[in-house]
This record gives sequence, C-alpha cells and structure tokens, in this order.
Amino acid sequence: MTARPKVRPGKRTNDPEGLRKRVLDVAEASFQARGYHASSLGDLMAAAGVTGGALHHHFPTKKALALAVIEERVAAAVEETWIAPVRAAGSAREAVRGVFEAVATELEQQGFVRGCPLNNLAHELSLADPDFRTALASIFSVWRQAIADKIRDDQQAGREQGTDPQRFAALSVATYSGAMSMAKTTQDAGVLRDCVRALDERGPCNTAAVRQVCHSPD
Amino acid sequence: MTARPKVRPGKRTNDPEGLRKRVLDVAEASFQARGYHASSLGDLMAAAGVTGGALHHHFPTKKALALAVIEERVAAAVEETWIAPVRAAGSAREAVRGVFEAVATELEQQGFVRGCPLNNLAHELSLADPDFRTALASIFSVWRQAIADKIRDDQQAGREQGTDPQRFAALSVATYSGAMSMAKTTQDAGVLRDCVRALDERGPCNTAAVRQVCHSPD
Repeated sequence: MTARPKVRPGKRTNDPEGLRKRVLDVAEASFQARGYHASSLGDLMAAAGVTGGALHHHFPTKKALALAVIEERVAAAVEETWIAPVRAAGSAREAVRGVFEAVATELEQQGFVRGCPLNNLAHELSLADPDFRTALASIFSVWRQAIADKIRDDQQAGREQGTDPQRFAALSVATYSGAMSMAKTTQDAGVLRDCVRALDERGPCNTAAVRQVCHSPD
Repeated sequence: MTARPKVRPGKRTNDPEGLRKRVLDVAEASFQARGYHASSLGDLMAAAGVTGGALHHHFPTKKALALAVIEERVAAAVEETWIAPVRAAGSAREAVRGVFEAVATELEQQGFVRGCPLNNLAHELSLADPDFRTALASIFSVWRQAIADKIRDDQQAGREQGTDPQRFAALSVATYSGAMSMAKTTQDAGVLRDCVRALDERGPCNTAAVRQVCHSPD
C-alpha cells in the first residue's frame, strides 16, 4: 500500500506530490460546493483523474481526506483571509474593518458566494466525528487568538483600554461567520458591509470610552 | 397514490396528520443532527415507523420533506427563540441580550450544542437547490425585519436615534449565527455570552451617543 509505483521509462506516472495536491484541490472544491456527505469518493477520483489505489495510497479513508482538507486547506484559507491581514494591520479594529470590506468586494466581483470555508465544514462535520470537530475548533481558536493578540498590541500602545481582547475576538469571528452564512443564503455580500458598519456605529458606549471622549480636549 | 387507506375495524391505521407530524419530527431531528444528505429516506421511514407509500403520500420527494421541515419547523424555531421574545421585550437591545443569555443558559443545562436550526440547514442546502435557498433566505429576512422593526419602535419612543435599524438587525443576526456556529464546533455555549457582552462594551462609540452622554447632566 505504501510502496511507490515504479516509474516506467517514457511514461512518467509517478508524481505523488502532484497527485496528492490534485486530490486535495478536487476534494476541497467539492466539500465546499456540495458538502462532505454529498461528495462521493468515486466522483472525486474521476474529477482528479486518479485510480482508487492512488487515492488510497495518500488518503486511506474519506475521513483522512477530509481531515487533510481541514488541516491544510481550510486552515490556510483562514490564515490568508484573516490572520495575516490582522497581523499586518495598524490596529485590531482597522484589521476587522479591512477584512470585511475586502471580502465583500471580492465576493461582489465574483458574483457568487460560496460561504466561509471553515463555517461550511464546521456546520456539516462538527457533530459527525470528534476528530473533525477538534480540527475545526482548533482553527476557530487560532483565528480568535490572532485578533485577541492584536487588541493586546493596541493596549500596549495605549489604545483599547476598555476592550476585553477575548470578547472582541469572539464578536469579530462570530459576526463574520454569521454574515457569511447570510451572504451565502441570500447570495448577497452586502450584509458584510451592514455588519461592519453596525459594529462601528454601536451604542450605547462603554463607560471607559465615553469618559475618554468626554474628557479629551476639543 | 393520494387515495387514503381504508380504516379497518379494530385497527386504526389512518391518522394522516399524526403520521405527517411523526415524519416531520424524525426528519427535523435527523437533518439537524446528521444533515440532509446524510439522512436516508429508508432510515427516516424506519425511525418514524411508516411505509414508503405513506411517506410518499405526504412528501412525494426528499426535497418536499426538507422544504416542509424548513418552512414549518425551522421557521417556527426562529419565531419561538427570537421573533416572539423581540416583540415582547422592552427594547431591541434588551431583546438581543435576553435571547443570547436565555439560549446560553438552555444549552449549558442541556450539555450539548446542536447549533442553530436555520444556520445548520442554510450551510448545507443554500447551494444545493434554489428552492431551499429561497425558503432559508426568507426566514433570515423575517428574523432581521422583526429586530429592525423593534429598533424603529425604540426610535419612536425617543431612543436609538443614532442606530440604523437594518444594520443593527444584520449585526444581531450575524453575531448570533456565528456564535452558534462556534458554540457547536467547540461544544461550549460560553461564546454566546462573550459575544453579547462585547456588543454591550463596544467602543469607540458613535458620535451621536457620545454627544448625548457628554452633554447630559451629571
């Protein structure tokens, strides 16, 4: 099972990394568009152009394939869309605003909302298998931690004194996740802009922030 | 196909409404716990104790059954959990806070998070079929409208002058939906409390609210 097939002269059949990547590409796309349960291994093999033996060599079970999609592809999507921009931004609030606006613009240009890769699989798979649930929860945790850490950076720079880092992170991730759920259902990314503007305009304010504004010189 | 089976003396086999309700109960529970695609009609029939003919009489297709679950059961769950409490509350903000706290308490007592019935099916079915998507989007719309209407009531009573009703509603529904997604994935309802507290403590505040607080007598 783990033996590599011989490469025959003149016919290169042995490209295990390319094959593994092709299977992950096809599985990722299908799990997001149709869902895990609605994606058959036969369809995935046909779409990736691989044999059952080759698939089995890399992913002995459908579950192993889904775990690889979650741990490699979904984690990378959250890293690229959220975590890297948060680390690079001038502040946590600027980061949150920037990601919402960037994703809304991207979806409007694309003209189609497939939803958040993490939330799509979290809804389908969290109750299906404890290993899926653990892998998915771990991505939510890393995502929230990056935002909470950014609030702590802000606080070290004298800002956000009235903000609880963990709660701010939970609210940011929840708002985005829920807005993407609505955007997918209505096929309208405008709800992302509504939500991030509502976050900015919220009142009543926390006492510390009001005190700061009231007591600051005009 | 639409003919009703004869009732035989001494054996009451004809209770079409009871049978329909039983099938909906079983389908609702299975779609929420395992998902639509992972629920086979055979399993549903066995769990409900009905024949294929009886099932077919009420729900000619699996899609018809899912639409009935969405339009009757999921809509009723959103009405009961959100819309009725929002209408009965003293203000929109009190309503949102109250629902988050009530659901968190209920889930903690239950010791298990199955997720939001609407979001669970929205993630799995929005891209699967346009009729599913329309039915699900309509429930999100009614939910948001009830919250926006409550903000308008608040405004007529002189409150929430700086709040955009539609945006407030979008943020409330998004935050709840995303928090339930995380609660399901982590099996911890505490994130609902984190989110609603973050909504209350958010800063910086909107200018109108700050002005109001700054200029109010001590």
